[in-house]
Amino acid sequence: MAFTLHPTLAKDSILAAKVGPLQVRLVDDARFFWLLIVPETTATELHDLDEKTSGSLWKLAQHLGHALQSHCDSDKINSAAIGNIVPQLHFHIVARHIGDAAWPQPIWGYGKAEPLADATKAARIEAIQSWLGN
Amino acid sequence: MAFTLHPTLAKDSILAAKVGPLQVRLVDDARFFWLLIVPETTATELHDLDEKTSGSLWKLAQHLGHALQSHCDSDKINSAAIGNIVPQLHFHIVARHIGDAAWPQPIWGYGKAEPLADATKAARIEAIQSWLGN
Repeated sequence: MAFTLHPTLAKDSILAAKVGPLQVRLVDDARFFWLLIVPETTATELHDLDEKTSGSLWKLAQHLGHALQSHCDSDKINSAAIGNIVPQLHFHIVARHIGDAAWPQPIWGYGKAEPLADATKAARIEAIQSWLGN
Repeated sequence: MAFTLHPTLAKDSILAAKVGPLQVRLVDDARFFWLLIVPETTATELHDLDEKTSGSLWKLAQHLGHALQSHCDSDKINSAAIGNIVPQLHFHIVARHIGDAAWPQPIWGYGKAEPLADATKAARIEAIQSWLGN
């Protein structure tokens, strides 16, 4: 079975960069600076990834977490693979601030996304690409 | 500054095993089979771990996720580092089942923990130790 991006992920996020088989996507939600890493695989669990992809995902997650925290001056980075609703493997990296829309609760399933303004979306995508040396 | 286990983690979970500097803890909640990996470090973000500890944590998380899924015949493994309330770095690995107490929502901040019966607690700790070859 070939990889096809899940329609919910396609609707809710924008491809910002590719690192090997890993898509880096920006979630279209102005409440949080929120990234997804989506490996182009049919595996649905982190422990089902091949070792190379798993290692690359972890390395990329650390790199993006660090860059996101510096960029946003965030109080906490939240990282997770959940997938109860969208089973396609996707790893969340979210910048959190004390007093943000959901603080201190997790963001997943919390309230409604607020679409990004075009200028903010473009600026975030540019930032992500710069962190990856693109 | 030396590592001291955060009192909330000490109260809510039980040490089941140690793998190098990584504590494997069982959360005292009968609603879910829920593990924590707590690196004995003062870092609070995954990307602030030294490379060796970070790699060990990731490898252990995959191993425990796989074992937990087999053991519980779970529908999904949820993995996360959040830390908005307890900043000490702790990585969650939780077996989820369709129809469980929080499904399909994330478990963090959801309802109240239900303490484990002694026999269940002992059986879970024994299982964890067996997965680690103890």
